[in-house]
Amino acid sequence: MKIALAQLNYHIGNFESNTNKIISHIHAAKQNGADLIVFAELCVSGYPARDFLEFKEFINLCAEAAKTIAAECIDIACIIGLPTPNNNPEGKDLNNSAYFIEDGKVKAIVNKALLPNYDVFDEYRYFEPSMEFNCIDFKGKRIALTICEDLWNTVENPLYITRPMDMLIKQQPDVMINIAASPFAYNHDEERIDILSDNAGRYKLPLLYVNHVGAQTELIFDGGSLVFDNTGKLIDELPYFEEHVAYYTLSDDGAISFEHTSTLRTEKQSDIEQIHNALLLGIKDYFNKSGFKQAILGLSGGIDSAVVCALAAEALGPMNVMAVLLPSRFSSEHSLKDAEDLVKNLGCKHEVIAISKITEAFEESLYPQFNNLPFNIAEENIQSRSRAVLLMAMCNKFGYILLNTSNKSEAAVGYGTLYGDMCGGISVIGDVFKTHVFELARYINREREIIPVNTITKPPSAELRPNQKDTDSLPEYDILDAILAEYIENRCSSAEIIKMGFDEEVVRKVIRLVNISEHKRYQTPPILRVSPKAFGMGRRMPIVGKYLS
Amino acid sequence: MKIALAQLNYHIGNFESNTNKIISHIHAAKQNGADLIVFAELCVSGYPARDFLEFKEFINLCAEAAKTIAAECIDIACIIGLPTPNNNPEGKDLNNSAYFIEDGKVKAIVNKALLPNYDVFDEYRYFEPSMEFNCIDFKGKRIALTICEDLWNTVENPLYITRPMDMLIKQQPDVMINIAASPFAYNHDEERIDILSDNAGRYKLPLLYVNHVGAQTELIFDGGSLVFDNTGKLIDELPYFEEHVAYYTLSDDGAISFEHTSTLRTEKQSDIEQIHNALLLGIKDYFNKSGFKQAILGLSGGIDSAVVCALAAEALGPMNVMAVLLPSRFSSEHSLKDAEDLVKNLGCKHEVIAISKITEAFEESLYPQFNNLPFNIAEENIQSRSRAVLLMAMCNKFGYILLNTSNKSEAAVGYGTLYGDMCGGISVIGDVFKTHVFELARYINREREIIPVNTITKPPSAELRPNQKDTDSLPEYDILDAILAEYIENRCSSAEIIKMGFDEEVVRKVIRLVNISEHKRYQTPPILRVSPKAFGMGRRMPIVGKYLS
Repeated sequence: MKIALAQLNYHIGNFESNTNKIISHIHAAKQNGADLIVFAELCVSGYPARDFLEFKEFINLCAEAAKTIAAECIDIACIIGLPTPNNNPEGKDLNNSAYFIEDGKVKAIVNKALLPNYDVFDEYRYFEPSMEFNCIDFKGKRIALTICEDLWNTVENPLYITRPMDMLIKQQPDVMINIAASPFAYNHDEERIDILSDNAGRYKLPLLYVNHVGAQTELIFDGGSLVFDNTGKLIDELPYFEEHVAYYTLSDDGAISFEHTSTLRTEKQSDIEQIHNALLLGIKDYFNKSGFKQAILGLSGGIDSAVVCALAAEALGPMNVMAVLLPSRFSSEHSLKDAEDLVKNLGCKHEVIAISKITEAFEESLYPQFNNLPFNIAEENIQSRSRAVLLMAMCNKFGYILLNTSNKSEAAVGYGTLYGDMCGGISVIGDVFKTHVFELARYINREREIIPVNTITKPPSAELRPNQKDTDSLPEYDILDAILAEYIENRCSSAEIIKMGFDEEVVRKVIRLVNISEHKRYQTPPILRVSPKAFGMGRRMPIVGKYLS
Repeated sequence: MKIALAQLNYHIGNFESNTNKIISHIHAAKQNGADLIVFAELCVSGYPARDFLEFKEFINLCAEAAKTIAAECIDIACIIGLPTPNNNPEGKDLNNSAYFIEDGKVKAIVNKALLPNYDVFDEYRYFEPSMEFNCIDFKGKRIALTICEDLWNTVENPLYITRPMDMLIKQQPDVMINIAASPFAYNHDEERIDILSDNAGRYKLPLLYVNHVGAQTELIFDGGSLVFDNTGKLIDELPYFEEHVAYYTLSDDGAISFEHTSTLRTEKQSDIEQIHNALLLGIKDYFNKSGFKQAILGLSGGIDSAVVCALAAEALGPMNVMAVLLPSRFSSEHSLKDAEDLVKNLGCKHEVIAISKITEAFEESLYPQFNNLPFNIAEENIQSRSRAVLLMAMCNKFGYILLNTSNKSEAAVGYGTLYGDMCGGISVIGDVFKTHVFELARYINREREIIPVNTITKPPSAELRPNQKDTDSLPEYDILDAILAEYIENRCSSAEIIKMGFDEEVVRKVIRLVNISEHKRYQTPPILRVSPKAFGMGRRMPIVGKYLS
């Protein structure tokens, strides 16, 4: 039996595009002699469709698309994923379903049993978990078909449902197929391989796994679909961050073989290389799928905006990136020079708009209220917000999308101005700690100097007052990031972090800053997620609450 | 048996305050001769504690607080709610628990079985549903204790768990007690009474129901704890929107009696009166619980900011409200006059800061880029954003919190400027349709003219260009709001709404506007929730997706 794995990039709610893409791959696979082509979880609707799923019309359109796809599925079988109505009126309205289609008809339906409901996942919001487990017979083979989390044997799964494979194995299947929508995080690929390999080995069955690829606003799907033999050995791996289709033959003795040159990675990609590729895909798909072409950003001469500018130029093409230099009276000479060098290296568009006249107009207008109160955060923020008004005016006039350039470290401690540098349509590096931003810059420069070395080596500064340095108010970034990772990603208490050897005063200050900044993060743009715990949908904190410290 | 129902206002994560409040009410109830005092669901932690629940330290502090409370519970029993570790390592980490405490010890633990995971609720994110059902024997009575959703017999509940009362009734209890955290929506009180009455009647048992009161950022808990006799008749109702304790006697024959004058509402409160009271509590608690005192807002002379200003003045006291008039060259004479009249009527503080010099500075600075392109949305938004920069500067200088004044109709269709009038710490009327804003204004004026009549009667305008009216780009508000309610609250498709008799072109335009504004709403402040479907946590839409139309 010849099986095609189709790792594709879908667009949520775009039934025309998703359906056409699926059908054209069915035809191609048939031409290539495949007996079965496997698409990813919820490929018909795109994933995650969120509260679109609460609209009956949306579910009807999924059903119609499935009908259209089925009609094209002649002399080949396919597996597609879609939300379907739950026939029992007592449970949730929907099931997260897989259709096995053969001869133009839905021959079998498998519903997902284990529904992820943690971090960015909300599947219990929509779906009723399945309690029925049946294999599918096809051309003399018995297939154990499961959906994503159904093979995810971790403690996150609720107790009350048996693991689907423990039920399916009783029917003595010949092969496991799992269709998934498993988003990228820099440490997730290895975990995924380990868990799936464990399944193949435990049940002594070959396993074919098909993932999504492509970004859906903040969630980036990295592809990397996988094939294991019946000992749990990984024998092939589809490419990461791109669409790909590959063919595998399942022989009568249960062995899996293929004719193409394996795309199995021979060496581990570094975290930074993966993050880099994920962010490129994240930017590209945000623009492609929202129908916009041109990005704008404020270029300060600092490392954050430089990295975002370089990523955007690579993702969208330099002619589609407008960098705006917005110097104030506190901007240093080298900042302007560094920003201009970057623009030259990248070949993107740029403008220079000085903000002094604007900030003076604000300060004059506020003179009766502010009187002679000393310069403080109010005046600092006026600068940052004036820049945002200028950038948004450019967006409104010319149709740009503003890229946010805040990094995860400053987003964490609230070192940024709400409605100022925290603006943007999408946050590119909001899930990248500052120490990783430096590594990203070096990675971007791996072949030639794109980001000026001075931008990388000079001490970070917001330049909102004379001689300001980030370290005036924050610890060194390697210490800050280490504390933040323990608190945000590992959810350690301050006591636990202090016990690890960090300075008590520093730890308490950092955690306090994180806590009092929740109200700011609530209003930030969606953040491209590259870590296992990003700000946004995956981290839901009270705003008005008393925080631990 | 004498039972006290304690309807109290808790603060999420404030263990000291919550614990002290619970203990002082235990002592008072003992003094008043109560055998048992009942507190609300998750009262120890506050509700919803969201991802605080993922911190082990938070759960430990809940356990410590329970221990402290138990030690004070001598010669009286109490029921408290708190998150507790789930002892089975395979499920979710926690249970949503109720402790029955007697003689200083936890005598029984009840875990919630039906976990709401829709709209604003995320309980499957944290909790493992209970599968064990046991009544509690206390002083010769058998109590069937359940937690909130456990008595919520709607189709939202998953199939795989039997209704808890169907299990508990087999043990022949004498009384039902339900502890809840049920947030306000203008139509929710009647639904709550109907469902609980149905339970009391079906199981032929008296029912005591204790709810939270108080706001937790966007969620407002209205109290209104309830007492039913064993026929399902509502015999008492605690006051809405305030803390209250009441005592009930359960006699040997199962009858419930009380000595106080009943607080059962004799006439139905109008939706607008309820919304009004809810918003007052929402504002008050947002400030109280975040430790801020003073609010600021921009006053345009229009009805939205007038209503918010009046509500804030009532909630916080007029001396704690700073109204800023921010006229531009497009502001009409009557707008300034109306705003000044309102300030006078309320007695709040005010400032006038003209924005023309600022917008001119922006336009001059952008001249090289904008050249002679015609005035459009870019210049309109510069005005709105300049006002936001001024208001935020006042916040940064003087410690105000900015109140957002957008209504639900404009938030829905994106008729507002991101980083402009969409700014704020909390959105006061973001869940109130414009037609209801008019009703609110009339309600605020029920005894005397507070909001100038001209503000209510003149045609709404953003005044961002000459002679602008809302109806230039939007349908009349009664039509707009009706379409929005069908789409947002009832999730009807455009085809369905058109079939109701609305003009096709208008419906398609409105729905398209709602859809293309998701990216804006993503970055808005938390919105005080007063309807069954508010923007925010309760409505999670994809941003980059293809919408139906």
